[in-house]
Amino acid sequence: MTDNAKQWTLEEARAALMALQRRQAAYEHAMALIYYDGVTAAPRETAENREISLSILSEEVYKQGTSPETVELLEYLDANRDGLTGDEKRMVHLLLKDIRNMRKVPMEEYVAYQALLVRADDVWHRAKEASDFAMFEPILEEIFETNKRFAGYISPEKAPYDYCLDLYEEGLTTEVCDAFFGKLREGIVPLLKRIQAQPQVDGSLRSGTFPAAQQEKLAHHLMKVIGLDLGHVGLATTEHPFTISFGSHLDERITTHYYEEDFGFSMFSVIHEGGHALYDTGSERELAFTELDGGVSMGIHESQSRFYENIIGRSRGFCEMIFPKVAEIFPEQMAGYTAEDLYRAVNRVCPSLIRTEADEVTYCLHIMIRYELEKRVIAGDLAVKDLPAEWNRLYKEYLGVDVPDDKHGVLQDSHWSGGMVGYFPSYALGNAYGAQFLAKMRETVDVNACIAAGDFGPVNDWNREHIWRHGGRYTPAELLERVLGAPFDPSYFIEYLRNKYTDIYNL
Amino acid sequence: MTDNAKQWTLEEARAALMALQRRQAAYEHAMALIYYDGVTAAPRETAENREISLSILSEEVYKQGTSPETVELLEYLDANRDGLTGDEKRMVHLLLKDIRNMRKVPMEEYVAYQALLVRADDVWHRAKEASDFAMFEPILEEIFETNKRFAGYISPEKAPYDYCLDLYEEGLTTEVCDAFFGKLREGIVPLLKRIQAQPQVDGSLRSGTFPAAQQEKLAHHLMKVIGLDLGHVGLATTEHPFTISFGSHLDERITTHYYEEDFGFSMFSVIHEGGHALYDTGSERELAFTELDGGVSMGIHESQSRFYENIIGRSRGFCEMIFPKVAEIFPEQMAGYTAEDLYRAVNRVCPSLIRTEADEVTYCLHIMIRYELEKRVIAGDLAVKDLPAEWNRLYKEYLGVDVPDDKHGVLQDSHWSGGMVGYFPSYALGNAYGAQFLAKMRETVDVNACIAAGDFGPVNDWNREHIWRHGGRYTPAELLERVLGAPFDPSYFIEYLRNKYTDIYNL
Repeated sequence: MTDNAKQWTLEEARAALMALQRRQAAYEHAMALIYYDGVTAAPRETAENREISLSILSEEVYKQGTSPETVELLEYLDANRDGLTGDEKRMVHLLLKDIRNMRKVPMEEYVAYQALLVRADDVWHRAKEASDFAMFEPILEEIFETNKRFAGYISPEKAPYDYCLDLYEEGLTTEVCDAFFGKLREGIVPLLKRIQAQPQVDGSLRSGTFPAAQQEKLAHHLMKVIGLDLGHVGLATTEHPFTISFGSHLDERITTHYYEEDFGFSMFSVIHEGGHALYDTGSERELAFTELDGGVSMGIHESQSRFYENIIGRSRGFCEMIFPKVAEIFPEQMAGYTAEDLYRAVNRVCPSLIRTEADEVTYCLHIMIRYELEKRVIAGDLAVKDLPAEWNRLYKEYLGVDVPDDKHGVLQDSHWSGGMVGYFPSYALGNAYGAQFLAKMRETVDVNACIAAGDFGPVNDWNREHIWRHGGRYTPAELLERVLGAPFDPSYFIEYLRNKYTDIYNL
Repeated sequence: MTDNAKQWTLEEARAALMALQRRQAAYEHAMALIYYDGVTAAPRETAENREISLSILSEEVYKQGTSPETVELLEYLDANRDGLTGDEKRMVHLLLKDIRNMRKVPMEEYVAYQALLVRADDVWHRAKEASDFAMFEPILEEIFETNKRFAGYISPEKAPYDYCLDLYEEGLTTEVCDAFFGKLREGIVPLLKRIQAQPQVDGSLRSGTFPAAQQEKLAHHLMKVIGLDLGHVGLATTEHPFTISFGSHLDERITTHYYEEDFGFSMFSVIHEGGHALYDTGSERELAFTELDGGVSMGIHESQSRFYENIIGRSRGFCEMIFPKVAEIFPEQMAGYTAEDLYRAVNRVCPSLIRTEADEVTYCLHIMIRYELEKRVIAGDLAVKDLPAEWNRLYKEYLGVDVPDDKHGVLQDSHWSGGMVGYFPSYALGNAYGAQFLAKMRETVDVNACIAAGDFGPVNDWNREHIWRHGGRYTPAELLERVLGAPFDPSYFIEYLRNKYTDIYNL
């Protein structure tokens, strides 16, 4: 520790901690917005310009984040942690972990990786449009290699894929994932077989022509219904839906994509991203501009998004409540259909090609495929160039479908082009967490009555009280323990699926 | 000079000069985009979030821009200027001027001003919507006061308003402006009287209902026609049209506003902003990410925007060339009208309330009013609270119109809320520069033939060769001298107006 550090009082250091986080949030705001602009509004040939700016800004973040002053400050606070609040302790812990990790990565490599991701987004868009994996392959290889290399720098004691998993769900390991996916497979595969032996339900209500402008109207209505604060949450159109915060939860954006032949995609992606945005914007105000602002992990995040999308949005009660609005916006397309038809159409189980369009039963199978592939690429057991063939083989094996081209196969998701290797398992975990949260919530909230009334106040209040307001205050495991008062158990999710689909398919 | 500086070789210092400018450009990219997001897509209640991020980023810019390392570098380069290229010399000169100015302003005041401007934009929007100057008054007063205070810090030897003028047009003074506006008044006032004595031309073609989506189609067509590279120039919708670069001329955006009752506003604002964007994106590639990228001054900038908007866009030839497209997009609205009707409708001289909708003859009178008011407020001869009354009085005196409310009066423009005191005279200068450029261009380019053919290649090549490619390489005065080979002379503009309107109004 230098003289500098010795001059601080604890009060000054605590103030400096908040200033440090506010500065980091400003850079995050800038960088997130440059990314967002690139996928929403930017002219097509401007990726190079963004790449240059993002390289420089990420270099600034790196330099400031790893500077001796920053490290001294955090180490001083860590050494004096008895004088800190619980939140401050957690901030210092997370920041020190980040910085220690960051300092293990050479700055040039860190900066080059940020630039690579900007280029990757552009190349992925073009490759997907052209349905040509070969265009994307060299850059994807670089992304996987970089993740592996970073894993080696940061956590040489771990298997590299365990490092990746922990990035999105603190504490998650391949071992835990293997067991979790094993349980899911045991529950889902026989259920799917029984469903497939029954007559298929009618999904014809979803096909037709649904102009984007009207879908957008429905999207705005849904955002209001689920309780988003539209003064702080915006909606835009992108290739792949996502949710993003700009520096703090005080400015949040969700995106969707309108397919004119099926309004269901935008409808449920808006509710899904809306769930993410509810979680982020539910942080306590004093967490804004700190490390603890927004969600704690991707698994908990997906528990919220998929709770609203599926448990709420695909419930019979929600379909009954929302159908009049859908029929008002699409009067001709809905003519002759009922709320029950909507319920069945949005819960039709049908093994398919696209993850984001998958039903609740097959969804986790899509995730397992990605999990298998990522794990093997990172372990060096599968070459990036062989990804399309393996992807297609596993889709045949797990889901029984033939992948016609890369656009509907290995190029469909933006996660890898965004560098998010290790993210996918969060979706499956989120499904399972959500079902267990529902059971707990039902002890004190009449969830069905809320849905029927279209009044999500009590549901949102429960989530806010138990989950949202805490932001990143607790680890995912601590949060689960606090909310559930019991260990995490995926059988709630399997039970939820069994009950729901036994009814729909008369099993 | 410290030991640090002595360690540089000239080559290293030159490389550091480019790196310094690239870094500044990245911050400008971020800050411009945060501003742009605020006026295009951001949810309504998010201004506070942008304000916090912008304060922090502008503090970073201030700190880096005025750091001892930066100053040492620039002073070293300045001392070794014989080894620099002409462009490098100009970069060092401009950067040193900026830094010396910046260092005269206390950092807290600089940062507070950036935050003030973010808040001002939000408050101005609300005040304009409510047509309530009182809402905006305290913040506008602070903006004027800050400009005055900064003028005192930076150029205590000058009258504060001369400092303001120089910000937008290097070398411009109140004395020059007074003489220039005097000449304009002498030419324009009698011309306007003669026009008003004649029967009014028919402008009915502009009224009707013109859906925004179709106006947007026309806007995209116009952008292509005038030669904008749509891979690098985007279009968005805002309250008040503007043009902005994101870090370099490689990513440029223009905005417009669609009034459904008059397609002319968006049509000509798109051509106007398109002129700015042509100028910016016409910089030589190697000027990107340097101080010399984009236009040299607001006067020269407005010469380009108003050249395309008026001299080209409001010419008879342009109306003849574009009318078939207008009629294709608005077939019912254009039924029974001819290209000549379009020409007359877009050149109808009529003293009015809104600057951006003004015809070419009365336009400069709108500018003179703003010039008078700014000058008097900065000189302390007019209180901000008295601005609406004075505004209304001058509109009556100069234009003969009664201002019904603040929305159509003193709150109409975004310049003051954006801190741009001293900007307005640039528009009038731009008009006058443009007319003199036209006369020079005509010596070698058959401008009328280009317009008739809808092929702006030769016109754009001339502007690119003489003006655009140089970016900020020369001072405005040097550039004018190089382009014109003669002193600037506003009589070209008055002559241009006289010829044009003598024909239209049979004077």
